[in-house]
Amino acid sequence: MQAATLDRAFHALADPARRAMVGRLVLGPASVSELAAPLAMSLPAVVQHLAVLEDAGLVRSKKVGRVRTCRIEGASLRAAEDWLARRRMQWEGRLDRLGAFLDAQDPPKKRRQA
Amino acid sequence: MQAATLDRAFHALADPARRAMVGRLVLGPASVSELAAPLAMSLPAVVQHLAVLEDAGLVRSKKVGRVRTCRIEGASLRAAEDWLARRRMQWEGRLDRLGAFLDAQDPPKKRRQA
Repeated sequence: MQAATLDRAFHALADPARRAMVGRLVLGPASVSELAAPLAMSLPAVVQHLAVLEDAGLVRSKKVGRVRTCRIEGASLRAAEDWLARRRMQWEGRLDRLGAFLDAQDPPKKRRQA
Repeated sequence: MQAATLDRAFHALADPARRAMVGRLVLGPASVSELAAPLAMSLPAVVQHLAVLEDAGLVRSKKVGRVRTCRIEGASLRAAEDWLARRRMQWEGRLDRLGAFLDAQDPPKKRRQA
């Protein structure tokens, strides 16, 4: 994933209202009014948040008649998760190697006696 | 995890320089100079990015003598990943149920004949 795409995805997720909208859309498509219902904000504010999510590629929407229906873009959500998962695995891998190194320097038996 | 903590974690990750610093620190602790070395920016700029990462709880640092050593905070990294993983699983769960529903409406055999 391009750096700018990750920038936009993480920026979009750095807001509780936008995370709430993502949390709703993973359960299924919703209209803008449905997205707005549980949020304590005006419809124009919700539309602005929606624009940030669409710009980040996390959500897409389509207007049919007078109703705009929003859907989650699973691929972008997964790309952000993958970035974090890879870093976490590298970090855990390092901890495992550090643990193995310390065990080799100072076997468990000896440490229990200390 | 508190909403404000997730806000700060995702905000901190919405910048390529800060993600590069996280990417370096998952491999092991580093001094501020070591973090700055691969980045095309001034040391004060790196220190500012470091402050954002520390504020988000993703990194902690400790100064001993003249050297400030930075370490990753694995728990915060995992909390951000967990938020995304849960949403992704809900989304995939919905797709699975949708697939099962469609299969029940229109068995595979019938669809192949169509």
